[in-house]
Amino acid sequence: MKRIDYPIEIRKLIDQLKRMPGIGPRSAERIALWMVQARNARPGEIAEAIRNVEESVRGCAICGFFATGERCAICADETRSEEVLCVVEQPTDILPLERTGLFPGRYHALGGRISPLDHVGPEDLRIGTLIERVGTERPDEVILALGADVEGEATGRYIAELLREFPVSVTRLAQGLPAGIGLESADELTLGRALSGRTKV
Amino acid sequence: MKRIDYPIEIRKLIDQLKRMPGIGPRSAERIALWMVQARNARPGEIAEAIRNVEESVRGCAICGFFATGERCAICADETRSEEVLCVVEQPTDILPLERTGLFPGRYHALGGRISPLDHVGPEDLRIGTLIERVGTERPDEVILALGADVEGEATGRYIAELLREFPVSVTRLAQGLPAGIGLESADELTLGRALSGRTKV
Repeated sequence: MKRIDYPIEIRKLIDQLKRMPGIGPRSAERIALWMVQARNARPGEIAEAIRNVEESVRGCAICGFFATGERCAICADETRSEEVLCVVEQPTDILPLERTGLFPGRYHALGGRISPLDHVGPEDLRIGTLIERVGTERPDEVILALGADVEGEATGRYIAELLREFPVSVTRLAQGLPAGIGLESADELTLGRALSGRTKV
Repeated sequence: MKRIDYPIEIRKLIDQLKRMPGIGPRSAERIALWMVQARNARPGEIAEAIRNVEESVRGCAICGFFATGERCAICADETRSEEVLCVVEQPTDILPLERTGLFPGRYHALGGRISPLDHVGPEDLRIGTLIERVGTERPDEVILALGADVEGEATGRYIAELLREFPVSVTRLAQGLPAGIGLESADELTLGRALSGRTKV
């Protein structure tokens, strides 16, 4: 009597689904069986959506945000101000900033941050194109919207240094208490930064 | 200034991923962005695995388990006994039974259970082919391995009635305390069944 398992195609699908973030072996099996069994699963539509994204979505040549043509929807929008340029680590950081509704300018996604431990140096990031953009677009201000951690700060300092030769004001996001949080839930470092960055009322 | 969102291809992918069981909007977004961004995501391989399963996996013509050819690996295994036939609701119920390592016979998946509330009648299930199999394969015993709930029991009674005309012994799975559970965690109904089904020590 042979040891019975799912057909190889289902096992391969489970292995592929397991690679997706947040999907463990049990979820992967559940999803695979749903694809095989459920009346309205229509897994071909999921496969098609994956292929469409893979084939047509790429980084905007200018800012690095997701685009299907040469330029993304933000860079193609002529009504956006060229006076402020907001530098982020990842293209995924752009939408959260957009949702604040407070930023009328343009973005530049570096594609990561300087991190010697991960072997990521300045040359691995879109820092060269950032400097070029500042040279040609001549913004009044560059906002460094980078992570409030060691790598984010090092990356910010590196860029600020390079931007010294331009007549541009370089700012960075405020650090302090997150909204809706009492002092008792804030860690020491956050509280320390909130204190040194205190503003007049 | 236009409201900015992901390109339509990414939004469609998120919508498709959300349809999978256990995947909420946030997980779907996370997986979609991973597919677009991660260096080793290779989403095309996931899409291909989905398509392969969709194209090649179907229900075994005999027992209803997952198969890529006409017959599944269990029905194709000549060393398995034809003397015991185990009836389950879903093809997914077969592997858990296989993993007990205690069943040497063959299976028959009904594809569901009789449930008037869900508009599922006997004619919607693979009950006709079950009766045919019992007529031709002539097993000594048919084990009804159906759910221990109202629909599972009604389905079992219906099948047992149809099998009366055959010289076959019809049994069903024991009901009682689940393994590793103390009496204090068992519900009344389980305890009642464990009591009426008590066995001699």
